[in-house]
Amino acid sequence: MDAVILAAGKGERLRPLTENRPKPLLPIAGKPILEHIIEKIYDKVDNIYVVVKYKREKIIEHFNNYDKIVFLNQGDLEGTGEALLTAENYISDEFIVINGDIVFEDSLDEILNYDYAIAVKKVNNPENFGVFLVDEKNNIIDLEEKPKFPKSNLINAGIYKLKRDIFKYLKEIPISERGEKELTDAIKLLIKEKEVKAIELKGYWNDIGYPWSLLEANKYFLDKIETKIDGEIEENVVIKGKVIIEKGAKIRANSVIEGPAIIKSGAIVGPLAYIRPYTVLMENTFVGNSSEVKGSIIMRNTKIPHLSYVGDSIIGENCNFGCNTITANLRFDNKPVKVNIKGKRVESVRKLGVIMGDNVKTGVQVSFMPGVKVGSNCWIGANCLIDRDVEKNSFIYKKDSLIIKKLQ
Amino acid sequence: MDAVILAAGKGERLRPLTENRPKPLLPIAGKPILEHIIEKIYDKVDNIYVVVKYKREKIIEHFNNYDKIVFLNQGDLEGTGEALLTAENYISDEFIVINGDIVFEDSLDEILNYDYAIAVKKVNNPENFGVFLVDEKNNIIDLEEKPKFPKSNLINAGIYKLKRDIFKYLKEIPISERGEKELTDAIKLLIKEKEVKAIELKGYWNDIGYPWSLLEANKYFLDKIETKIDGEIEENVVIKGKVIIEKGAKIRANSVIEGPAIIKSGAIVGPLAYIRPYTVLMENTFVGNSSEVKGSIIMRNTKIPHLSYVGDSIIGENCNFGCNTITANLRFDNKPVKVNIKGKRVESVRKLGVIMGDNVKTGVQVSFMPGVKVGSNCWIGANCLIDRDVEKNSFIYKKDSLIIKKLQ
Amino acid sequence: MDAVILAAGKGERLRPLTENRPKPLLPIAGKPILEHIIEKIYDKVDNIYVVVKYKREKIIEHFNNYDKIVFLNQGDLEGTGEALLTAENYISDEFIVINGDIVFEDSLDEILNYDYAIAVKKVNNPENFGVFLVDEKNNIIDLEEKPKFPKSNLINAGIYKLKRDIFKYLKEIPISERGEKELTDAIKLLIKEKEVKAIELKGYWNDIGYPWSLLEANKYFLDKIETKIDGEIEENVVIKGKVIIEKGAKIRANSVIEGPAIIKSGAIVGPLAYIRPYTVLMENTFVGNSSEVKGSIIMRNTKIPHLSYVGDSIIGENCNFGCNTITANLRFDNKPVKVNIKGKRVESVRKLGVIMGDNVKTGVQVSFMPGVKVGSNCWIGANCLIDRDVEKNSFIYKKDSLIIKKLQ
Repeated sequence: MDAVILAAGKGERLRPLTENRPKPLLPIAGKPILEHIIEKIYDKVDNIYVVVKYKREKIIEHFNNYDKIVFLNQGDLEGTGEALLTAENYISDEFIVINGDIVFEDSLDEILNYDYAIAVKKVNNPENFGVFLVDEKNNIIDLEEKPKFPKSNLINAGIYKLKRDIFKYLKEIPISERGEKELTDAIKLLIKEKEVKAIELKGYWNDIGYPWSLLEANKYFLDKIETKIDGEIEENVVIKGKVIIEKGAKIRANSVIEGPAIIKSGAIVGPLAYIRPYTVLMENTFVGNSSEVKGSIIMRNTKIPHLSYVGDSIIGENCNFGCNTITANLRFDNKPVKVNIKGKRVESVRKLGVIMGDNVKTGVQVSFMPGVKVGSNCWIGANCLIDRDVEKNSFIYKKDSLIIKKLQ
Repeated sequence: MDAVILAAGKGERLRPLTENRPKPLLPIAGKPILEHIIEKIYDKVDNIYVVVKYKREKIIEHFNNYDKIVFLNQGDLEGTGEALLTAENYISDEFIVINGDIVFEDSLDEILNYDYAIAVKKVNNPENFGVFLVDEKNNIIDLEEKPKFPKSNLINAGIYKLKRDIFKYLKEIPISERGEKELTDAIKLLIKEKEVKAIELKGYWNDIGYPWSLLEANKYFLDKIETKIDGEIEENVVIKGKVIIEKGAKIRANSVIEGPAIIKSGAIVGPLAYIRPYTVLMENTFVGNSSEVKGSIIMRNTKIPHLSYVGDSIIGENCNFGCNTITANLRFDNKPVKVNIKGKRVESVRKLGVIMGDNVKTGVQVSFMPGVKVGSNCWIGANCLIDRDVEKNSFIYKKDSLIIKKLQ
Repeated sequence: MDAVILAAGKGERLRPLTENRPKPLLPIAGKPILEHIIEKIYDKVDNIYVVVKYKREKIIEHFNNYDKIVFLNQGDLEGTGEALLTAENYISDEFIVINGDIVFEDSLDEILNYDYAIAVKKVNNPENFGVFLVDEKNNIIDLEEKPKFPKSNLINAGIYKLKRDIFKYLKEIPISERGEKELTDAIKLLIKEKEVKAIELKGYWNDIGYPWSLLEANKYFLDKIETKIDGEIEENVVIKGKVIIEKGAKIRANSVIEGPAIIKSGAIVGPLAYIRPYTVLMENTFVGNSSEVKGSIIMRNTKIPHLSYVGDSIIGENCNFGCNTITANLRFDNKPVKVNIKGKRVESVRKLGVIMGDNVKTGVQVSFMPGVKVGSNCWIGANCLIDRDVEKNSFIYKKDSLIIKKLQ
């Protein structure tokens, strides 16, 4: 049994988080989506073919030491079908195909029992997904992409058990208008000739469609962690709830940590800092004096040194927050925060902070309105209230008029 | 012996605190002014007639379980005389009449010994009160309302021991120009025919004329409390001075509490919060990380979650403060803070913060200049400096011009 | 053996720190530069003549109780030569002359062995100093002031061992164009007739040429202190590193102190405050809740009560910081911070905060850009971002346009 993981996409809806990394590398509960997938299947397969393209060097660097993994580079042609074709020359007859940007709890044991099977999930909004129609034996009899009027609430969960003859169909299907070969087009041919089972996934599943999906999945998996404190804990630190503090991390004096939370190696918290539930501090981060982080993912090397609040936010790598940088995460009217996704205003969740790329520097007393996106490499000048999205490589500041009078 | 408490007024000088409640319900040292009064007399009288009108449902709700209390609704006619007349059909021959918006320390034992007596206080500014002239036997011989040139420094403290024949005089006096019947007009007739003693009240007395009077009285009564800690105290909490922490309150880790202070049931402090002397946190309030409250009254359900400072302020119910909401409470020139009271600028005290109604929401990094009043139900946008009074139901915000340049 | 200390100058490059005090009174590691000098020589000389002029009353007040010190007032004529001449009528035949604005580690034992000797230091930028040329016996053979093309890297360290015949040369030299008599002009005559040794100073030496030199020297001498905790330490205080906490100082509950640091008598820290390395809190200062001070000198009576950050800054006496006053101390581009020194932009160091005079008051939520200088007696209005130098006696504020809408 082999596996193919499709990890070539650009993840545009996840911008700016995907400006410098592919979506499968986004961290959930302290490790990349792709690592979650690989852990699920590592002991069940002989080889894992990871099909890469966008920012592939980052994936290769991260998974370099895994013996079973072979990286395959998708060529100019786009699409999941084309991605799978990349593996044709390597793969054994039995294999599982997994989208590289999903997280799930199911063991995959059931789906591996079939020649042909596709994982499905029941959802309330099938119109946003690929929708399956199945017969009374759970064989798939139809498949529609994002139908206006879905015929069922069973959606394609992005996990397929296949055999090599899928390649025949992949070659038959045409290249789509947008120049892609879609795996689902081949599936449509497959279901006409073979029994393809719809296997409902057990437990949690999330395709990380939006930035806030990352926070939602992070929350889900943080609720599953068990306490493990290997880092250095200074005086008067109070820790509550389930917390992982890795070796090499340090919680400085008089800080308070409330789990579930993960604090990774090299991270420093405090003194006098406050980490609240559903926070992940990645490697070498720093959250200092009187700062508070809640429900957020803080990526590597980012520094939040003093008097700052980061809530329900995702902050990229190598950011540096000036003293008293504050994220707002709630509207006055309590309605869902709206976020610009590929040009459209999309309703997210009731509490959402800032979505920030890498290498952003903020000045002192900067604040962000809920749901704002800040591209990588920006400088945000002191005392600015950022109430709109900021494109990458921007320097944004303000010049207040000051009135000067002579005293006496 | 019966009692009549006059609790029908609007308390306009106490706006916005009285927008949603009558003045007798304003809390001092954790309970309403009216409750302080009732406790003083409850064991000394048979019935307590509380004359209500403005927002009377709030008074009735609060004191519903007191057996001796009968609520009487003052009709269309205004004035303290009319209020007392409301009780005519119920009251016994001996009774005490107390303004419902005063606080005092005196036991009232002495005044109850007389047929007719009125409590007086010596003050330095009698011109703002009703002023008595007394003879060598302490019988009142004259009464003037807010005289330009007071004949004494003995003022009417708002507590009268009377008998039923006062009703005769109340019926004789005319309705004033502003359509009211004043109890003091009847007193003027009474002193011509009866011996009416001026009884000087012992101890503290305050008629809560202004918002800052509430803070002053709060301070006075907090100095009298005895420590009683029934709430939950987490790790590394440091408590100094006299503090009442009610059952159901929680002081979270690494916080510091300096009394005198009262923290009522359901209130949460911290972690890492700082409560300073002369603070009252009413039921279900929250003062969180790195926040500091000093010399302030925070009413029920109000949340001050992070990095905020509230000093010498009164904050209504159900308010929610964005991160880093700051009250200024001191002028650069150290002069008394000025406050708008019924259209006039009135000098208050050297340190005064914000006077805020109910249901106010502030954004992140909001600040208030000393002595500002904010009406109920307002939204104060992020990063605003509020340097003027804000009417209720206002949404106030700003739009800074931001300069955006491309880096590199 | 006598000593003369030249302490008459205005220290213009150190403005605004020298607006109200002469440069020799600027504190390094908790005591004035001049006190460092006097301690070095007190046991080695019979009399110390301190030549004063600018703000001399402050020097006299500080050193009033030292038996060996005689204050001499320099007259109208300016210059170091004129200053030394002031001592002519008092001084014995053997004496050492020291500039009153330098700090150094050398014991001076070696230089005292000679009839005529001048201390020198090797530096990388001799063009900014007086430069000596010496022969193979270390006798000085030439002296140039700030030469464009220095003939050596040995500079005048401002310490001279002389005998009374220097007065003869001082009288011979003319008054310079700017109306001063320079000691170095007399030295030029001296070296023609006498052997004048160049003695290289051992250890650290700094002539405190700029405000940031004060921080640099402060850092150097703080690294030499030994822990001595005589003040009051409340509950849950965590102290790390070498710290001097004088008797009469108080560290309040749950604070964190990281040395090297000096906290002087009467200073109060906390509760919940954070003092970081290379901080000196002078007498009667206050650093309160959630405030952080790092790498800074805070002079007497200055108050930083809440939610503030002061980094790499020098703050004068009697300042009062409004809640949430924040100093920025780093440029986005990581280049050295530039500071205006006598009309020129001078590159300082990578991290530099604010340089502030005495009696400055800031409102709430004030911030300062790196390297800004604020003159004495200023008021800085709430919410201002100070991005330029502020002259003394200024009141600076802003008036934001606020938009007000009715809700509902």
